[in-house]
Amino acid sequence: MAVANPPVDGQPARAQQPPWHIPEKIEKEPQLMVYNSLTRTKVPFVPMKGRHVTWYNCGPTVYDASHMGHARNYVSQDIMRRILEHLGYSIHFVMNITDIDDKIIVRARQNHLVKEFRSQHPHLTPALLSEVKTSWSAYFDKTLRRFAPPPPPEEVKQLPGGKVPEEAAWEEVSRRYISDEKWRQETSMQEPKLGMWYSALDKSRQAIIAATMSTTASSLDSSAPKESTAALVDASLDLLSSSLDAAHGHAVTDPSIFRSLAAYWEEAYFKDMRKLGVLKPDQLTRVSEYVPEIVEFTEKIMANGFAYKDERGNVWFDTRAFDGAPTGEKEKHSYAKLAPWSKGNRELLEEGEGSLSTSSATTSGKRSPSDFALWKTSKPGEPSWPSPWGSGRPGWHIECSVMASSVLGTRIDVHSGGVDLMFPHHDNELAQSEACHGCAPWINYFLHTGHLHIEGLKMSKSLKNFISIEEALQRFTARQLRMAFLMQQWSSRMDFREASMNEVRNAEERFNNFFATCKAHARQAATRGPAFSDGHHHYAEGEKALVSQLGEAKLAFHAALCDSFDTPTAVSVLLDVVSRANTYEKEARKAGVNAEVLDMVGRWVGDMLRMFGLGHGPVFEGQVGWGEDGAGVADQASAAADSSAAGGVDRESLLMPYLEALSDFRSSVRRLARQGAPHSELLALADRLRDEDLVDLGVALEDAAEGSSSANGTEGEQSQQKAMVKLVPAAQLRAAREEKQRIVREKAARKEEAAKKAAAARLEKLERGRVSPALMFRPVSEGGLKAHDGLWKEWDEQTGLPTKDAATGAEVGKSRRKGLEKERATQVKLHEEYLKAKEKGEVE
Amino acid sequence: MAVANPPVDGQPARAQQPPWHIPEKIEKEPQLMVYNSLTRTKVPFVPMKGRHVTWYNCGPTVYDASHMGHARNYVSQDIMRRILEHLGYSIHFVMNITDIDDKIIVRARQNHLVKEFRSQHPHLTPALLSEVKTSWSAYFDKTLRRFAPPPPPEEVKQLPGGKVPEEAAWEEVSRRYISDEKWRQETSMQEPKLGMWYSALDKSRQAIIAATMSTTASSLDSSAPKESTAALVDASLDLLSSSLDAAHGHAVTDPSIFRSLAAYWEEAYFKDMRKLGVLKPDQLTRVSEYVPEIVEFTEKIMANGFAYKDERGNVWFDTRAFDGAPTGEKEKHSYAKLAPWSKGNRELLEEGEGSLSTSSATTSGKRSPSDFALWKTSKPGEPSWPSPWGSGRPGWHIECSVMASSVLGTRIDVHSGGVDLMFPHHDNELAQSEACHGCAPWINYFLHTGHLHIEGLKMSKSLKNFISIEEALQRFTARQLRMAFLMQQWSSRMDFREASMNEVRNAEERFNNFFATCKAHARQAATRGPAFSDGHHHYAEGEKALVSQLGEAKLAFHAALCDSFDTPTAVSVLLDVVSRANTYEKEARKAGVNAEVLDMVGRWVGDMLRMFGLGHGPVFEGQVGWGEDGAGVADQASAAADSSAAGGVDRESLLMPYLEALSDFRSSVRRLARQGAPHSELLALADRLRDEDLVDLGVALEDAAEGSSSANGTEGEQSQQKAMVKLVPAAQLRAAREEKQRIVREKAARKEEAAKKAAAARLEKLERGRVSPALMFRPVSEGGLKAHDGLWKEWDEQTGLPTKDAATGAEVGKSRRKGLEKERATQVKLHEEYLKAKEKGEVE
Repeated sequence: MAVANPPVDGQPARAQQPPWHIPEKIEKEPQLMVYNSLTRTKVPFVPMKGRHVTWYNCGPTVYDASHMGHARNYVSQDIMRRILEHLGYSIHFVMNITDIDDKIIVRARQNHLVKEFRSQHPHLTPALLSEVKTSWSAYFDKTLRRFAPPPPPEEVKQLPGGKVPEEAAWEEVSRRYISDEKWRQETSMQEPKLGMWYSALDKSRQAIIAATMSTTASSLDSSAPKESTAALVDASLDLLSSSLDAAHGHAVTDPSIFRSLAAYWEEAYFKDMRKLGVLKPDQLTRVSEYVPEIVEFTEKIMANGFAYKDERGNVWFDTRAFDGAPTGEKEKHSYAKLAPWSKGNRELLEEGEGSLSTSSATTSGKRSPSDFALWKTSKPGEPSWPSPWGSGRPGWHIECSVMASSVLGTRIDVHSGGVDLMFPHHDNELAQSEACHGCAPWINYFLHTGHLHIEGLKMSKSLKNFISIEEALQRFTARQLRMAFLMQQWSSRMDFREASMNEVRNAEERFNNFFATCKAHARQAATRGPAFSDGHHHYAEGEKALVSQLGEAKLAFHAALCDSFDTPTAVSVLLDVVSRANTYEKEARKAGVNAEVLDMVGRWVGDMLRMFGLGHGPVFEGQVGWGEDGAGVADQASAAADSSAAGGVDRESLLMPYLEALSDFRSSVRRLARQGAPHSELLALADRLRDEDLVDLGVALEDAAEGSSSANGTEGEQSQQKAMVKLVPAAQLRAAREEKQRIVREKAARKEEAAKKAAAARLEKLERGRVSPALMFRPVSEGGLKAHDGLWKEWDEQTGLPTKDAATGAEVGKSRRKGLEKERATQVKLHEEYLKAKEKGEVE
Repeated sequence: MAVANPPVDGQPARAQQPPWHIPEKIEKEPQLMVYNSLTRTKVPFVPMKGRHVTWYNCGPTVYDASHMGHARNYVSQDIMRRILEHLGYSIHFVMNITDIDDKIIVRARQNHLVKEFRSQHPHLTPALLSEVKTSWSAYFDKTLRRFAPPPPPEEVKQLPGGKVPEEAAWEEVSRRYISDEKWRQETSMQEPKLGMWYSALDKSRQAIIAATMSTTASSLDSSAPKESTAALVDASLDLLSSSLDAAHGHAVTDPSIFRSLAAYWEEAYFKDMRKLGVLKPDQLTRVSEYVPEIVEFTEKIMANGFAYKDERGNVWFDTRAFDGAPTGEKEKHSYAKLAPWSKGNRELLEEGEGSLSTSSATTSGKRSPSDFALWKTSKPGEPSWPSPWGSGRPGWHIECSVMASSVLGTRIDVHSGGVDLMFPHHDNELAQSEACHGCAPWINYFLHTGHLHIEGLKMSKSLKNFISIEEALQRFTARQLRMAFLMQQWSSRMDFREASMNEVRNAEERFNNFFATCKAHARQAATRGPAFSDGHHHYAEGEKALVSQLGEAKLAFHAALCDSFDTPTAVSVLLDVVSRANTYEKEARKAGVNAEVLDMVGRWVGDMLRMFGLGHGPVFEGQVGWGEDGAGVADQASAAADSSAAGGVDRESLLMPYLEALSDFRSSVRRLARQGAPHSELLALADRLRDEDLVDLGVALEDAAEGSSSANGTEGEQSQQKAMVKLVPAAQLRAAREEKQRIVREKAARKEEAAKKAAAARLEKLERGRVSPALMFRPVSEGGLKAHDGLWKEWDEQTGLPTKDAATGAEVGKSRRKGLEKERATQVKLHEEYLKAKEKGEVE
C-alpha cells in the first residue's frame, strides 16, 4: 500500500514527501493457535470481542485436600492465562467453587457421624468391637465380596461351635480373604480399586485383632486405655464412615455441617494456590449463592422442551429431545460434542450424577439412561433449597452452566478444566446451556489439561501414591513444580517422576548461574562509570552475534507460545539463549565482556520466566493501585517507600500486618482507657504486644531497663526509655521467648524451693524457741531442752541456770557457767521470737 | 472456516464430533496505527520481523543539563516503548550518546579557559576590568551591533578627553544601547535571541560598573575582595567564554577536557532519566566508540559516488548527486524525505553543521549549499581522530547513521527523536544511510515527539523560562510530570502550564482515592473469610453493569492505544471507569459492596497506570533474574519478608519508621500506666498517634464510630471497633488534618466568642444587682438606681418601695405600686446573685 502524502499548509506543491509503502514482512507474525477439545486439533484463537477474552474455569469441589493432579490443572491454566495476557489479551477469568455436591454431603455427614461415634465410645467395649466388625462385614460385602469365591464348606465346619455366627463369619472371611496375599494379587488384576478396599479391610482387621487381644487381657473393663479405642476407630475409618452414614446419614440435617466442611476446604484450596503462585480468579462464584438462578435456568430449559420433571420432584435433562433438535441458529443441537464416543458410558454417567443420586429408586423417573439430573429431590440428610418442584438441590452440571452464563453470558470464549471433566460434565454443561439459550456453540474453545501420573502410574488411594500439594511443597519449591509443568505440554498426560525433577533442578540452576554472571558483569561495569570510554558501548562481532541470537530466540519463543502454548519449546528456547550467552561471555572475556549485551539477554530471560509465574513476586501479579509515589514525604519513611517502589515490592502487603498490629494495640488502649481499666491491664496489654503479636511478626522489642521507666523518670530519662526495635525471624524470637520463659520458670522453681527450705528452717527454729529460758536446763518432763535432760541436779531459782552437775554432783564451774549463760542468752532470743510468732498465730 | 475433526483411534466412524467454526468477531480487533513523519499521517504499524521491533532513538548531546523539553521527548518515547511492549511487541531499543559535537568542543574549551582565567585573575585589577570590557565590546559587535544605529556624533564629542578611546567607546555604547529600555523593546521584535544577548550584556555591564566603583574606592589594590572578582567573572561568563575561546580556543588540546565534560553530562542525563522513570535503552552507543565504523561508512558512500573530499580534508555529502539517483531497489533516491520543504533552509543547515563548521573558509569546498559534512578536518583546539582524509572528526548526522546501522542493520523499523531533529538531522541520516546501503527506505517509521512550550511560550534562555528537569522535579513528582505528558498527544505541541498541572493533580487524587476504596473493601471482605456465604460471590445487576463497563473500557483503552498511542483518550477511559466504579460503590453500599468486582476494576486500572510507567516501580521494568525463590516460608510476616526479598528491597528500612512509631506509642502507654496517669492522657496519646505520627508516615487510621467503642462495648462490639487502616500520601493526610483542625478552630473561636458575650452579659447583670432592693428607689446619691433617681419623695421604711411621687407629691397608686413591686422582686433576685458572686470574689 502506498500512502499518498497530504500537502502541507503553505508549502509549494513540489515540496511533497515521496510515497511511502507499508513495510513487507520478512518474518510473518505467527497466529495464535490453541488445541481445542471441540475439534481435538489446534485451531486459530479468535476471541469475539477484540482482544478481550471471557474465560470460565471449573474450580474445585471442596471436600478434601488438593493434590498434585489439582496442582497441575490449576498451574497449567494459570500459565495459559499469563501467556494470553503477555500476548496482549485481556481476560475476564471466572472460576467457581462447587460447594453443593454429593461428595461434600457424604463427607460432611461421615465426619460428623464418626465424631459422634467416637464420643459415644470412649472405651474399648464388646459393643464397640462388635460394631466395628459389623461395619467390616458390610464393607466387605459391598466391595470384595463379588470377587470372593464361596469359602470351602469344610473350613466352615471346623469353626468352634461356641462363637456367635456373625463373629465366626467375620473371623473366617477376614482370615480367608484378607490375609491371603496370593488371592489378593490375583484379584487385583480384575479391579483397580481393589487395592484400596483391601488395604482398608486389612488395616481394620489388624486393629480389630489387636483390640480383641487387649480386651481379653484386661477383661474388657472400662479402664482399657482410650488410645486403643482411638486406634481401632482410626484404622477402621473408611468402614465405619460408610456404615455409620448408611445407618444414620439421613438424620444429619444441620446445614452448617455441610457449609463448614466446604468453607474449610475452600480456604485450604486457596492457600495451596497462593503457595503455587496461581493468580486469583477475577471473579469467584459459589454454587450456594446461585441457587435461585439455577432454578430459573432449569425452568427455561423445561419451557424450551429439553427437560422434564418426574413423580419424585427430580428434573431431568432430555438428551433424546435435545440431540438433533433445531437451534435458534443454523445448526442442529448435538449432545456430547466433546466426547460423542462416551455417550451412554454408564460408569462415567453415574460418577457425574453423584453417589447419592444413582439408586434405581432415584433414577427410575428417567426417560433415557443418558438423561441426567438438573434438579434433585433431597432425601433426609441432604441439604435442600426451595424450588417449584419441591425441596431439593441442583445437579452438578447445571451449576456450572448457570454460573458461567450468569457472569459471562450466552456465548463464552474459553472454558477450561481437567480432562476428566470432559464427559459427562462439560458435555452436559454444553447441552444445558445451548438448550437454555438456544445458541449453537455456547463455548468457542474448550481447553482441557492432561492427566497427571506419578512415576508412570495413575494417582490413586489404592496405590498410595496420592501426593497432596502440601506434601509436594515439602519436597519441591513452588517454582520447581511450575517448571516441571512448564516443561510438559499442558494438554498431554504428564508423568511426574523424581528423575525428571532433577532435570528441572538442573534448568533452574542454569538460569540462576546465568543471572549471577550477568549481575557480576553489570556490577563491574558500573564501577567504571561513564567517564570510561573504552569501547564498552561498541558492538563487535561477538556482541552482534549474541544480539542476533537473542532476536531469533524472541521470535522462536513467541512462535512457541503461539503454537498452543508450547511451553516446553519456549523453555528450551530460553535455556538455549542462556547457553549462547554463556559461550559469548567465555569467549569475550579476553577482549572484554560487554555487560550491557549480557544484561539485555538476562533481562529478557528473567522477564519471560516471571511472565510464566516463576518469579514468586509481585511483578505481573495483579495488584490494585500503581504503587506508592515516592514524592511528598521527606524523611526515612519516604526513602523506604521510594526504595520499595524501586525494588518492586508491594509495600502495602509488607506493611499491613505491622500496621494492623499497631492499630489493634491502639484500639485496645483506647478501649481500656475508656473503661477506666486498672493500669496493670494496660501494662499486660503492652507485654502481650511484645511477647505475642510482635514475636509472630518477627519483631523484637527490647524494653529499656525497668529503672528508667519508673514513675520518677525525668523527661530526659523518659526519652531514653525508648525500646529497641529489631527485625528477627519469628522462629528465632519464639525460641528466645521459650528460653526466657524456661529460665523464669526455673528461677521460680528455685525460689520456691528456697522458700520452702527457709520456712522449714524457721519452723525448726520456732520449735526450738518454744522452751522458756527459765526452764531450758530442767528435765524434759518439766519443759526443758532435750539436750540438757538429766544433766543437772540443781538450778538457780531466778535464772534457771544449772548450779550442780547431776552426774558428779559437783558445783558448776565458772567457765562452764559462762557457756551455759551464752546458751541461755540464745534461747532468750529464740523464745522471744517464738512468742511473737505465737501471738501472730504462726505457731500454736 | 469449518474444521474437520479427525477420527479418534478405535472409535467407530459415527461417534465423531460435530463441525466447529472459527468464531465470528463481534468487535474487530483494532490495527495499530502510528503517526509516521514520513507520511505525516497515521499508517498501519508493521514491523518487519514478526512482533520484534528494532528502534533507534536519538539520545542527548551531552554538554549541559537536560530540561523539560528533553523530559517530554524521552518520557514520551518511553511511554510509546512501554505501550508497544504491552501490545505484545518485543523491542530492541538502541539509543546513542552524542559525545563528539561542536557544542561539546566549544563548551569544554570555554569552561576550561574560564577556569584558567579565574586562576590568572585572583584579584580585581585594571587589567581584569579592561579584559572584561574588551570581551563586552566584542560580544556586542557580534550580537547587538547590527541592530544598533550609529551613535549620534555630538554625544561622542561630549566624552571627557582624559579617557582611553576603548574605555570611552564601552561607556558610550553600553549606556547608549543597553540601558535604553525603549530601544531594547523595539529591537527585540527583529531577533528572538536579542533578549538573551541583551541580558548577558546588561548583567555584565552592571557588574563592570559595580567593580569599577569598588576599585575606585579601594584604589584598585590587591586587597580587593575576591568575591567581587568572582562576581564580575560570573556576571560576564557568556562574554568572557566567547572572547577567551576566540583568543585561546585553538590552544586547548588535551582530549580529556572534552571527554570529561561529556562524561559529566551523560551521567547527569541518566540520573534525570532514572528519576523520571525512563527505562534504560537495551543498548547504548557512544559516538566516540564508533569512529572507525564512521570512517568505513563514509568511504562506502564515497565509493557509491555520493560524497566527495575537498582540498582541506573535509568530506561532504553530495546532495545533488544523491537526489533522484537510482537505488538498488525499484525507487529513486530522494533527499529530504521528511521535510522536503526545508531543503536549502540555510539557517537550519548551519545549525546542523555546528558552530565550528560554518565559516566560509570551512565550507568553501562544498559543491552545493545543501551539501553537509560527513567528516570535518579538525582545527587546532578541536579533538581529532585519524582518517584517510587526515586528522578530523565525524559530522553530526553521520554518527547516527553509522551507530544505528551498525547495531540494527540496513533496515530499521522505528527511528525516533524530537521534532526539531527532523531537518536536517534525520533527513541527512536517511540520505547517508540510503546512499551507503543502496536501500530505498532505511527507516520505516519516524516518530517525532512534539515541542514543549511553557505557559504558551517557547522555552528559551532569553525568556528565562528554561526549566531544568531537576527544577521541575522540585515542583512536581515524576508521576505528575509523566501524567502531564500522557494527557497530551505525543506528536503535538504541548503547552506546559501551571493550570493544567492542577488537572493532573486532580486525576492523580481520583485514582488514589479509588484505590484506597478498593483496598478498604478488600480488607473488610477478607475478615469475613470463606465461611461467610451471604451472596458476596454473586453478581446482581450493579455488579454485572460494572463488569460490562469494565469490558467496554478495556476495548476503548486498547483502541486508543492502537490509534497512534492516543494516551489522552486512554487516560480518560481509565478515569471514566473509576467514576463508574465509584458510583457502583456508593449505590451498592446498602445492599453490600462486592469487593471482588471493585478489586477487578482496581487491578486493571492499576496495571494500566503501571504499564504507562506511572508506578514508580519495577513492574514491567526490565530486571535480571526472576527474584528470590520463596521456598520454605510459611506465615504472613515471612510472606511479606519474602516479597521484600523478591524485590530486593531493604525490608528493614521500609518497616522501621512504622515500627518505631508503634514502639514509641507502646513505651508511652507503659510510662503513663506506671505513673498512674489519668485515662484521658492515654486517649490523648492515641489521638496524637493517629493525627500526628501516623499522618507523617502516610498512614490513615479511621477509628470506628465512637459509640461502639464505649466502655460498655460487648465482645462483639469490640471486634467491630477495629480501626480502618489505609496507606495514603502524607501530603493528602496533612491537608485533611489541617482542614479538620481549621473546622475545630473555627468552632472553638465561635464558642469563645459566645462565652465572652455571656460573661459580659453576666457582668452587666451583676452590676445591676449591686444596688440593694431596699435602696433601689432612693436617689442615686443614697445608693439608688439611676432609673429612679429623683422620681420619689417618700419610701416605705421596711420594703423601700416608694410611697410618694417626687414630682406630684401624690401617693403611689395601687396599680403603679404593683409595677414597682415587680421591679423590686427582680432586683431582689439580681442582688442575691450579686451577693453570691461577691462572696466568691467574682465581683468587688
